[in-house]
Amino acid sequence: MQEMLGVIVEGLDKMRGKKPLIHHLTNHVVMSDCANITLHAGGAPVMTMAEEEVEEMVSMADGLVLNIGTLTSSYVDIMIKAGRKANEQRVPVLFDPVGAGATAMRTEAARRIMDEVNVDVVKGNAGEMSVLCGIEARVRGVDSAGSSEEPEGIAAAFARRYGTTAVVTGEIDCVSSGGKSWRVKNGHVMLSRLVGTGCMLGSVISCFLSVMDDPAEAAVAGLVTFGAAAELAGDTVSCPGSFKPVFFDSIYSIDSETIIRLAAVEEDC
Amino acid sequence: MQEMLGVIVEGLDKMRGKKPLIHHLTNHVVMSDCANITLHAGGAPVMTMAEEEVEEMVSMADGLVLNIGTLTSSYVDIMIKAGRKANEQRVPVLFDPVGAGATAMRTEAARRIMDEVNVDVVKGNAGEMSVLCGIEARVRGVDSAGSSEEPEGIAAAFARRYGTTAVVTGEIDCVSSGGKSWRVKNGHVMLSRLVGTGCMLGSVISCFLSVMDDPAEAAVAGLVTFGAAAELAGDTVSCPGSFKPVFFDSIYSIDSETIIRLAAVEEDC
Amino acid sequence: MQEMLGVIVEGLDKMRGKKPLIHHLTNHVVMSDCANITLHAGGAPVMTMAEEEVEEMVSMADGLVLNIGTLTSSYVDIMIKAGRKANEQRVPVLFDPVGAGATAMRTEAARRIMDEVNVDVVKGNAGEMSVLCGIEARVRGVDSAGSSEEPEGIAAAFARRYGTTAVVTGEIDCVSSGGKSWRVKNGHVMLSRLVGTGCMLGSVISCFLSVMDDPAEAAVAGLVTFGAAAELAGDTVSCPGSFKPVFFDSIYSIDSETIIRLAAVEEDC
Repeated sequence: MQEMLGVIVEGLDKMRGKKPLIHHLTNHVVMSDCANITLHAGGAPVMTMAEEEVEEMVSMADGLVLNIGTLTSSYVDIMIKAGRKANEQRVPVLFDPVGAGATAMRTEAARRIMDEVNVDVVKGNAGEMSVLCGIEARVRGVDSAGSSEEPEGIAAAFARRYGTTAVVTGEIDCVSSGGKSWRVKNGHVMLSRLVGTGCMLGSVISCFLSVMDDPAEAAVAGLVTFGAAAELAGDTVSCPGSFKPVFFDSIYSIDSETIIRLAAVEEDC
Repeated sequence: MQEMLGVIVEGLDKMRGKKPLIHHLTNHVVMSDCANITLHAGGAPVMTMAEEEVEEMVSMADGLVLNIGTLTSSYVDIMIKAGRKANEQRVPVLFDPVGAGATAMRTEAARRIMDEVNVDVVKGNAGEMSVLCGIEARVRGVDSAGSSEEPEGIAAAFARRYGTTAVVTGEIDCVSSGGKSWRVKNGHVMLSRLVGTGCMLGSVISCFLSVMDDPAEAAVAGLVTFGAAAELAGDTVSCPGSFKPVFFDSIYSIDSETIIRLAAVEEDC
Repeated sequence: MQEMLGVIVEGLDKMRGKKPLIHHLTNHVVMSDCANITLHAGGAPVMTMAEEEVEEMVSMADGLVLNIGTLTSSYVDIMIKAGRKANEQRVPVLFDPVGAGATAMRTEAARRIMDEVNVDVVKGNAGEMSVLCGIEARVRGVDSAGSSEEPEGIAAAFARRYGTTAVVTGEIDCVSSGGKSWRVKNGHVMLSRLVGTGCMLGSVISCFLSVMDDPAEAAVAGLVTFGAAAELAGDTVSCPGSFKPVFFDSIYSIDSETIIRLAAVEEDC
């Protein structure tokens, strides 16, 4: 735990020092919020989705976020094109399989992206992540409606099956790199009262992923920072409309000392 | 009036208990706000617009919102596909003919949707609703620029012509089911200082529509809840930037007692 | 300076009196914020992008904003169609070449728009504007990463090359009409901590452009109003999440006296 805290705050400093360019191919609902949280966290967002330029934009980026929240078939093709270019240029890729399991199209799109792109971190809720690694579960719209497996087990199964770092979000967030695993207890119930906080978390993890060598450590760093900022915000407001600007303020102003004070990470073996 | 208040608060309890999944095919400007207000009011939003999955998503939804604020011809086709599936599955449909009357494309798209989908509630401003039922009126951009008829008359004419529940928004909102009609005086001038509040109202009405049998009562319940929340927010702030988060807080936290206290509904016969 | 202040406040009064309809063909990230700031500043936004209706919508508009922040090739074609119609109908056009210089597609799209549409005001950062008039510079994502020329020189070169009014944004904003030029020192560092403030500035300048005869004076009026409102907001909050609603409040409530008090404009000869 002590060691991980050192890794997190070093990652935060490095990330804010670099201002990594995070290229998003994300959904239309959260585009503005994801761009803003990237900027507030310490990165620089760019959100282009034109087939003609994604490869050129990816080549100058420090991180790539793929998110199928409002997918179309051509948009998935463009995501794969961008993802392959990212692989070629060693730009780390985070994938958010929003709504996988809810419709056949989403499940297939998510599987295709996992097959054709080397993804460094996959982040989803218990339902989405379960469906993608063959565990029985249900997804209603873009929300998990239950899985037959515990989050720790889903993360481990996902990581082993796809050879990647898996993040299963929920009341407690679970990270697995196949070998090691972590539980992060930071966060606040208000995050579930606001649309797109899962997508925003993907942006923040991607910021850390762009400067840290170990994808699982980057995922933990992103989860702790995001969750601790939510706790700070949740301490001062109790409704979601007011929570949003205060949460953005917290992500912007949170410092290493506060993160060390609030971090609630456990390593499982 | 007393009876209607009972209906409204019963609807609110039922809706919050169910957390209805509201599928939106809406415009790009308000997508985030409509998703958030759906969640704050008590529903669960999903916003997909891919032709390949809309029917599957509609089939698991409790309500469908169609909104042509940023239409394209293919988007209208997808809305009709989703609307027909909703009819088949008995998922209630709310339609917002944004900007009908401003351009030929919008007027035709709105007429086509009305022709090809059984819509349970249509909600628009005086200009849009007038144009669609042959009353002389003007629409400038997406705003009403005047009608030759009073709102009560427009609502009644629309409801009779299309055999649906019509909501004509304005300083006083008018609801007509053809037979019965209501006037709702709740609301606040700040709603007109913020973009997309009409679209957000559609989301809130759709939440009620998903759990109430009578579309006109659901429309009144949505209007009263939305308008009363705006009044609460308008009491504490006087500028639109600050109004938005406070209004979202009010929609989230408003309870039955407050709704009963503030409701300003009149039934016309 | 004194004369320019009179011009600005006269423009503000005229604009708020007219409530100009500003048609935007803009990017998906800022669509909601640009619509809102247009409304708060005193205009009425409309954001349609359908090929079938852009000409009809432009014909009833008082101003047109073209912004390539999330361009696609077909979207650029539609922008040109809208721009030509605007020229034909004498609707003033503002163009924001977001990310020109970052990718070949953006640079070419921006050049094509400049070639095929008579643009009244072009507004960009130092990198974007430099690249478009042949000055060596770098653009990273959608941010300027340095130019070999000072902002004043870039604005003047751009205005001469394209025969238009050029606005180069930065710590100090520079406006050039080819003949005359101005420096505007209003603004606040928080504007750089929030996504899309450059795009929002374009909306506000377009509001002024719709009622003022001289495009350069309209640009200065927009810059001063926008920057002064940011100063007011920045005086009360120090984080970007809270800054946004307060800034929107300031744009909505700023009056002539405050603008005169805060205006920091210099005319260069």
